[in-house]
Amino acid sequence: MTTTSSASPTPLTHFDADGQAHMVDVGAKAETRRVAVATGCIHMQPETFAMVKAGSAKKGDVIGIARIAAIQASKRTSELIPLCHPIPLTRVAVDFELIEHDAAIRCTVTAETVGRTGVEMEALTAVNVGLLTIYDMCKAVDRGMRMEGIQLMEKLGGKSGHWKA
Amino acid sequence: MTTTSSASPTPLTHFDADGQAHMVDVGAKAETRRVAVATGCIHMQPETFAMVKAGSAKKGDVIGIARIAAIQASKRTSELIPLCHPIPLTRVAVDFELIEHDAAIRCTVTAETVGRTGVEMEALTAVNVGLLTIYDMCKAVDRGMRMEGIQLMEKLGGKSGHWKA
Amino acid sequence: MTTTSSASPTPLTHFDADGQAHMVDVGAKAETRRVAVATGCIHMQPETFAMVKAGSAKKGDVIGIARIAAIQASKRTSELIPLCHPIPLTRVAVDFELIEHDAAIRCTVTAETVGRTGVEMEALTAVNVGLLTIYDMCKAVDRGMRMEGIQLMEKLGGKSGHWKA
Amino acid sequence: MTTTSSASPTPLTHFDADGQAHMVDVGAKAETRRVAVATGCIHMQPETFAMVKAGSAKKGDVIGIARIAAIQASKRTSELIPLCHPIPLTRVAVDFELIEHDAAIRCTVTAETVGRTGVEMEALTAVNVGLLTIYDMCKAVDRGMRMEGIQLMEKLGGKSGHWKA
Amino acid sequence: MTTTSSASPTPLTHFDADGQAHMVDVGAKAETRRVAVATGCIHMQPETFAMVKAGSAKKGDVIGIARIAAIQASKRTSELIPLCHPIPLTRVAVDFELIEHDAAIRCTVTAETVGRTGVEMEALTAVNVGLLTIYDMCKAVDRGMRMEGIQLMEKLGGKSGHWKA
Amino acid sequence: MTTTSSASPTPLTHFDADGQAHMVDVGAKAETRRVAVATGCIHMQPETFAMVKAGSAKKGDVIGIARIAAIQASKRTSELIPLCHPIPLTRVAVDFELIEHDAAIRCTVTAETVGRTGVEMEALTAVNVGLLTIYDMCKAVDRGMRMEGIQLMEKLGGKSGHWKA
Repeated sequence: MTTTSSASPTPLTHFDADGQAHMVDVGAKAETRRVAVATGCIHMQPETFAMVKAGSAKKGDVIGIARIAAIQASKRTSELIPLCHPIPLTRVAVDFELIEHDAAIRCTVTAETVGRTGVEMEALTAVNVGLLTIYDMCKAVDRGMRMEGIQLMEKLGGKSGHWKA
Repeated sequence: MTTTSSASPTPLTHFDADGQAHMVDVGAKAETRRVAVATGCIHMQPETFAMVKAGSAKKGDVIGIARIAAIQASKRTSELIPLCHPIPLTRVAVDFELIEHDAAIRCTVTAETVGRTGVEMEALTAVNVGLLTIYDMCKAVDRGMRMEGIQLMEKLGGKSGHWKA
Repeated sequence: MTTTSSASPTPLTHFDADGQAHMVDVGAKAETRRVAVATGCIHMQPETFAMVKAGSAKKGDVIGIARIAAIQASKRTSELIPLCHPIPLTRVAVDFELIEHDAAIRCTVTAETVGRTGVEMEALTAVNVGLLTIYDMCKAVDRGMRMEGIQLMEKLGGKSGHWKA
Repeated sequence: MTTTSSASPTPLTHFDADGQAHMVDVGAKAETRRVAVATGCIHMQPETFAMVKAGSAKKGDVIGIARIAAIQASKRTSELIPLCHPIPLTRVAVDFELIEHDAAIRCTVTAETVGRTGVEMEALTAVNVGLLTIYDMCKAVDRGMRMEGIQLMEKLGGKSGHWKA
Repeated sequence: MTTTSSASPTPLTHFDADGQAHMVDVGAKAETRRVAVATGCIHMQPETFAMVKAGSAKKGDVIGIARIAAIQASKRTSELIPLCHPIPLTRVAVDFELIEHDAAIRCTVTAETVGRTGVEMEALTAVNVGLLTIYDMCKAVDRGMRMEGIQLMEKLGGKSGHWKA
Repeated sequence: MTTTSSASPTPLTHFDADGQAHMVDVGAKAETRRVAVATGCIHMQPETFAMVKAGSAKKGDVIGIARIAAIQASKRTSELIPLCHPIPLTRVAVDFELIEHDAAIRCTVTAETVGRTGVEMEALTAVNVGLLTIYDMCKAVDRGMRMEGIQLMEKLGGKSGHWKA
C-alpha cells in the first residue's frame, strides 16, 4: 500500500505525478493557527445603494442577511470546492463597508482555524456568497450590479508564513 | 389565516410591509421556461495562465474540474442564498474562455428551468464557484489572483421578459 | 414490477403492509396549492428577554438572524425528516411575537407550495430551527430557556382539506 | 490585520462591539471533553400513543426511525444554526421514553465531543428532529400533537464547568 | 443567446459537441410518470449474516437502519452525481431479502417521480447507500464483506419506454 | 449523568445494551493516522468501454468527472451513513484502471485521516459514487452496466492495526 502522496511534476499541487486530481495529503502538517482575510465589492446604481443603506439602519436589513449567508457559506466550503479539505473553523467575522461615492459595498471576511491547512478558500467563499446575497435581495430593482475585486488580502500561519496582497 | 404575501413598501421585494425578510410568494406565477446567463473573470499571472492552459489540453485539467464544481454549485443555490426558492434546473452549461492577452479566464454559465421564478442566482452562483475552484487549484503558485466583472448578462422568461446587460 | 404503493394495515401511512418504512406514493395526487401554519414559543429569563427585545430594535438582532435560519431550515426539511418528500416551497414567512409578560418569544411560520403533498413538516421544522437559533444566541446568558407548545395551527389544501388546531 | 475577536458590549457573545453577528473566536480554547444532555416531549392522543408503542415492539418502528433521524440531525447542527461552529462529535446517544399516563414520548439526547466549544446545540437539535420525525410519521392520524419542554438538562466541560437544569 | 442544447458527437449525452460536460437540457421533455428499480447484494460471513437476521427480528435492527439510509440517500442523488438533474421523488420503497444459503442480503429499491427525466440514478444511489450502511454496521465483526451485482433491473416511462435487465 | 458508552451484548458495536442504535463513543481513542483502501469495478459493453477509454484521452472525460465525484462524496460520508462519525479527511486519492479484456473499469480509493476512528466508510463511499458517476454518464448507451466486487482492501491505524483483504 502506497500511502505517501505523489509528488507533482507541476507546481499545481492539486494534481499528482500523472496529472490526476487528488485531495493532497496534509496529514503530516502541524495543527497551527491559520488566518485568512479576503475581500470583494458589489457595484450598483446609486438608488439601489441608497435603499441598502437605509435598510441597514432600520427596516429591510440587506446587510444583516448577507452577513449570515456569508458565515454559513464559509462552513460549506469543502462541499463546494472539490479538492478542499474539511476544516473546523474557529472564527468567522464578516464586515461590510458602504462606499457611498462609488455606490459600492465592500465585503471583507476573516476566517480562522487551528488546523493542518489554510482557510483562504473559506474566506473567499464567504465573500462571494455575501455579495451574491446582496445581489439576490436587490436584483428586483437593479439587475446590472457587478461583483469586482474579489481577492485574498492576507494569510497567516502554516509553512508559507505571512502573505499580504 | 392570512395567506397572501404582504405588499412591500420598498421595491426590495424580499422584505414585507414591516421590513422583515421573507421568501416571496411565487405560487400564483406561471411555470414558464426561464433562462439566465451570467459571466465573470479570474485574472492571474501569465505563468499561472500558461499552466492552466497547458492542463486543459492534457494533464492537470483545472478547467474540467472547475466546470463540474460550477454545475454542482448551481444545484445548491437555494441552500446558499437565504431567500432563494428551490428550483428544479432543467439545464446548466458552463463555458470557459482563455483570454491570453489578459492572462484571464472567463466563465460563462447558462442556467434554465421550467418554473415559477428566474434562475439568475443559479447562473451567478455557478460562475462564482467555477472561478473559486480555479483559484483553489492555482493558489499554491499565485495567491494574488482576482475575480472581476461577475454579473448577469441576459435573462429570459417570466413577467419581466427579456433583459440584457 | 409492482409500482402501486402497498396499502398499510395501520393508519400510519409511512409503513407498508409489512410494517416497513417507505416514502409513500404521491405520484397520483394533484398538484394543488397547500398551506401550513405552525407555531411555538421559547421561554426565558426576563433579563434575557430584555436583551433580545433591545437587539431587535437596534444592535444585536437575534430575531432577524433566527428568521433567516428558520427560512433556510424549511428548505432542508426533506434532508432532516427521513420520509418527507422533497417539496418546492413557493413561500415562507416567519413572524416573531415578543410576549413581554411571559418573557417568551413566539415564532409562527407560514409555508406554501403548489405540490402533491402538504407542507406541515416544512412549517414545523422552520419553527423549531427558529427557536433553536434564539437559544443558541442567548445561551451564554441563559442556559435554562425552554421551547414549548410547538404545534401545527392550520393546514389548507389537499384531499384532507382545511384543518385548524 | 486585526485577528483578535472583538469584545462584546452585551453578554450576547454572538455579537461584536458593533452589534454585528460573528462566529466567535474559539481558537484559543482548549480541546477538552464536552458533554451535553437535552430533552423534550411530544404529546399525542392516547390512540396515537398506542400505535407508536405497538410499533416499537414489532412492525412500524416509529421510534427506531426517529432515533436515526435525531443522530443524523446532530451532525448537521452547524449547517442549521447560523453561528454554530462545526464540531466533530465523538458520541451521540438517543433515548426515548414512553410515558403512558400522559400519552407522551420523551426524547433525551446525550452528545459528546473533544473540542473547543460545547455541544448543547447538537443535543438540542437532535431532540427537536427526533420529535419532528415522530410528528411526521403519526400526523396522518393525529395532526394536533404538541412538542413541549425542550430544554438543556446538563452540560459538562469547558470553562463554564458543570451545569444542571 | 444560444439556448438550445448542443448536439453531442458521441452517444454520451452528458458531453456537448466540444466534449465538455453539461447538465443536459430536459426542459422540452414532458412531465410523465417514471419508475426505476435497482438492486444489489452484500455478501458476508455466515456468522455475520446470522447476527443481522437476528437483529431484524428483535434488537439491533441493521436492516431497518439501512432502509432509512437508502431512502434518505435517494433524495441526495443530484448532490452526489455531478450531472444529475434535481428530481422531486414521489415514491421510494426499499426492500431487503435475506438470502441464507449465500449469506447475502439483497437490497432492491423502487423510485418514482412525475418529471422530465428518469430516476435510475436515484434507485441505484439508494441501493449503494443501503448496502454501505449494512457494511458500516457489521464491519466490526466482518471487514471482508463484498457488494456485488449492483445494477438497474427495470425502467419505465419517458421516451425510451420500458426497459428490463 | 451517565456518560460512558454502554457495552454491547453483541459484537455489533453500533447498538447499545438494549439493542438501540447509537453513534459509538470514540472520545477516549487516540488521534492517530488512519488509512483505508477500497476498490470496486463497473462492467460494461465493449463499445461503452471503448467510448470511456477514448474520452479519458481527449474529449468527454468520464473518468475525470467520476474522480471528482468520488472525492467530493468521501467528504459527505457522515451525512449518508447514519452512524458514521464526522471525520476531517487529510488525504483522498482516486485511481481508475481500465481493464480492457473485461470491458471493466476498476476504481480504487485511498482515504486518510488523523483522527479517532477509521476511514473505511469514506473510502468505500467514494468508490461507490465514483462507479455510480460512470454509470450515469454512460447509461444512455448501456443501461445494463453492473457494479461488482466493491470491498475494503486494506486498513491501517487504530487499535485493530493492519488489516488486508
